[in-house]
Amino acid sequence: MTEKNPEIDEIEEGTVEEAENILPTSDVHHSREFMDTLSEALEEQDESRVLELFEDMHAADIADLLEFLPSKNRRTLVSLLGDKLPPELFIEVEGEAQFDLYEAVSNEQIADAVTELDTDDAVYVIEELDAEDRAEVLRALTVDDRAAIEENLSYPDESAGRMMQRDLVALPEFWTVGQAIDFLRSEDESIPSDFYDIFVVDPGHKPVGSVPLSRIMRSARNISLGEIKDDDLHLVDVAMDKEEVAYRFTKYHLISAAVIDAAGRVVGVITVDDVIEVIEDEAEEDLLALAGVSSDLGVNEGLTDIIKNRFLWLFVNLGTAVMASIVIGLFEGTIEQMVALAVLMPIIASMGGNAATQTMTVAVRAIATKELTSLNAMRVLNREVIIATVNGAALAVIAGTISWLWYDNITLGLVFAFALVFNMIVAGACGLLTPLTLNRFGIDPAIASSVFVTTVTDVVGFFVFLGVAAAVLL
Amino acid sequence: MTEKNPEIDEIEEGTVEEAENILPTSDVHHSREFMDTLSEALEEQDESRVLELFEDMHAADIADLLEFLPSKNRRTLVSLLGDKLPPELFIEVEGEAQFDLYEAVSNEQIADAVTELDTDDAVYVIEELDAEDRAEVLRALTVDDRAAIEENLSYPDESAGRMMQRDLVALPEFWTVGQAIDFLRSEDESIPSDFYDIFVVDPGHKPVGSVPLSRIMRSARNISLGEIKDDDLHLVDVAMDKEEVAYRFTKYHLISAAVIDAAGRVVGVITVDDVIEVIEDEAEEDLLALAGVSSDLGVNEGLTDIIKNRFLWLFVNLGTAVMASIVIGLFEGTIEQMVALAVLMPIIASMGGNAATQTMTVAVRAIATKELTSLNAMRVLNREVIIATVNGAALAVIAGTISWLWYDNITLGLVFAFALVFNMIVAGACGLLTPLTLNRFGIDPAIASSVFVTTVTDVVGFFVFLGVAAAVLL
Repeated sequence: MTEKNPEIDEIEEGTVEEAENILPTSDVHHSREFMDTLSEALEEQDESRVLELFEDMHAADIADLLEFLPSKNRRTLVSLLGDKLPPELFIEVEGEAQFDLYEAVSNEQIADAVTELDTDDAVYVIEELDAEDRAEVLRALTVDDRAAIEENLSYPDESAGRMMQRDLVALPEFWTVGQAIDFLRSEDESIPSDFYDIFVVDPGHKPVGSVPLSRIMRSARNISLGEIKDDDLHLVDVAMDKEEVAYRFTKYHLISAAVIDAAGRVVGVITVDDVIEVIEDEAEEDLLALAGVSSDLGVNEGLTDIIKNRFLWLFVNLGTAVMASIVIGLFEGTIEQMVALAVLMPIIASMGGNAATQTMTVAVRAIATKELTSLNAMRVLNREVIIATVNGAALAVIAGTISWLWYDNITLGLVFAFALVFNMIVAGACGLLTPLTLNRFGIDPAIASSVFVTTVTDVVGFFVFLGVAAAVLL
Repeated sequence: MTEKNPEIDEIEEGTVEEAENILPTSDVHHSREFMDTLSEALEEQDESRVLELFEDMHAADIADLLEFLPSKNRRTLVSLLGDKLPPELFIEVEGEAQFDLYEAVSNEQIADAVTELDTDDAVYVIEELDAEDRAEVLRALTVDDRAAIEENLSYPDESAGRMMQRDLVALPEFWTVGQAIDFLRSEDESIPSDFYDIFVVDPGHKPVGSVPLSRIMRSARNISLGEIKDDDLHLVDVAMDKEEVAYRFTKYHLISAAVIDAAGRVVGVITVDDVIEVIEDEAEEDLLALAGVSSDLGVNEGLTDIIKNRFLWLFVNLGTAVMASIVIGLFEGTIEQMVALAVLMPIIASMGGNAATQTMTVAVRAIATKELTSLNAMRVLNREVIIATVNGAALAVIAGTISWLWYDNITLGLVFAFALVFNMIVAGACGLLTPLTLNRFGIDPAIASSVFVTTVTDVVGFFVFLGVAAAVLL
């Protein structure tokens, strides 16, 4: 199982120092020294120094750097780098830094970058522009490039059609490995610079299989593609949602997949690097949505947008908190007679809210990974109710005992324990059913679940605790 | 930019129906019909029917099916499939279904599967076994396979060494494309079945570059690898944490990367499909940890484990909720004189908790994606305080007005508004500084942040509201 190659093995060993030199100088923006040197060079508008610092730097690193710089320095840096800006920078950079970059360059520069990029990346850049700039950049492109971009843009947002790259290698199955290699060595401009699979197509240009490049390289020239192709195609429909695309790539460990149109003909290819971005975006979206924050609003985003975005959620939450208060208000007289209730009631709400959040988060994740569907929802609901009952009972014993000892009132302890376990069962059921129901109606369960679920546990918790207390204790 | 190939273009168009036939029958376990047919066949122990249903099914689909079946049927299915079980099934299946699968097969079957798998996958299977089974399976392997697995196991958990596959293609830079292709066509058993890059190494077996397969295929036979290699190596140290590996793959859009030992020599390769799993796992871990649930405990996990796991968190939360109650208890006299305080105080806690959760979640995510570091922490803190002040002030005006009108008491409204805005600023600062501090001390910020942050906002919120009310209103 080990790699061996007689000619290059058994030579003198290197030292650890050399190994460290080989390691890439990744994440320069995390080095205070580099940032200080750069700030100085930008201060002095020292073009040669700046160019030296950025020589051979990966576009992703330049993007990170831009995001870490203050706005003024970003513009200076962009203008000093001039036409040394790598085209990929336009797709790597995010947030306010993206805004500054696009502002600091001419439409001509953007058009040059777009020409260099793959279709999917070019579309991404075009989408970021306002209508006027977009028209100007599109006019500056060749007819072919413009047509390709406009076709991608004609597919729905979030669809495979938007993600795909149009250049791919599709060959008939009777071709031999030798013919394929000769074709690839030709100067045919439809051949993309990077690809991982050759798609085998029938005369109607419909895919009938795929061959990974490593298999082509390991096969003799006279073997036909039909003989070595994989039959289990994981085709992507041009209208497929990008989340579904990511799901398939992950599940079947794909590196690239052919995209077909409604007639079943190959029209593009999606590669795994684009899928990784979708996976990261979806995970971030769910995480932030559950916390009441829209995605795309990281630490580098515009302040006004963030404030508006978070305000909306907090405002909705104020409404639901007031509802919970109204429930408490119904029992003002009860509380007046027994202040202990006011002291203990936040515990009921807090425990219910936490139990609900646990269930809800597991459910949202399981829906996203398709582990939870309508087929096993009942089984999972049973489990959640059992979990809530067992944990609720255990915690109710502890909490009930604490409150009994605290106020030397065993009935208060029992009422408290009952309300706690009741609310936790409600929390478990509601934490599961809310995301499932939202999902069934086509609403992203991550976005709307938490506000609804915590409102229910607050209202139910306060109502049951204060209501039972009013009936039993007074 | 469009793909064209004269020989296969311009042929008659297919129909939509045909296209639908080409589309893969993915996710059979989501079809009630299939599940019903399968249950029937399992009930009747109908081996030929079962084998027919599973013919050509991808291991990932079989794994999903197993997870959806009740435990008894899982074992029947596994024994009916017998040696038709694909080796990959052992790495695809998760949760209770994994437990059932491993129980239902012999160690001999596991050893056969391990022999078929790549090193990294074989290690994964071995890790799932208990000590006794592990020893027996290892004994059944060839000396080479065993040595490779044991070496991988010698690297730390979560390290690149554990993730890597040992078979790779590393060639000297003076070799030509022709020599490389001839070598790959040879029967050398060190050549892996799937690979995406050829690593170029110096005489000391240290990597000096890499060549994607597509570039090799597009180059003439007489070109040397040295001429076409990429110089910017994204090498992975064998001890590198797998999260860092995933970060680099994502950032630099890698498909595969060479893993080097302390002496800088190539010892393995990591491919993008393994990285996707790391990305998904990390995202899930953060999401669940913020909700107080350990990862690896999805809807298919053992009930007892889930109950214990969630109980722990709820128990900690009970402790912190009691702390908040103790603060309220300090003001029992105040509440007795003015029950309105008990009615309004949950709003303060709820708003503080929500604002803190927003900031904390954004911070946890930004730390994970390295957008937030000690270099820009101060700038981000400033922003968070501004956001909290603006939103807190706006909400305080609304909430203060509501409480003023509700109880016809303007002083109460003012006290309420002051406590609200104060608590939201605390929430913003604390929501950011908590994960940053935990991260600095090497603690995963996702795990411990929420409990601490909500305790602070509860305690501060209640204390300020009730304290100021006691001083001003009575």
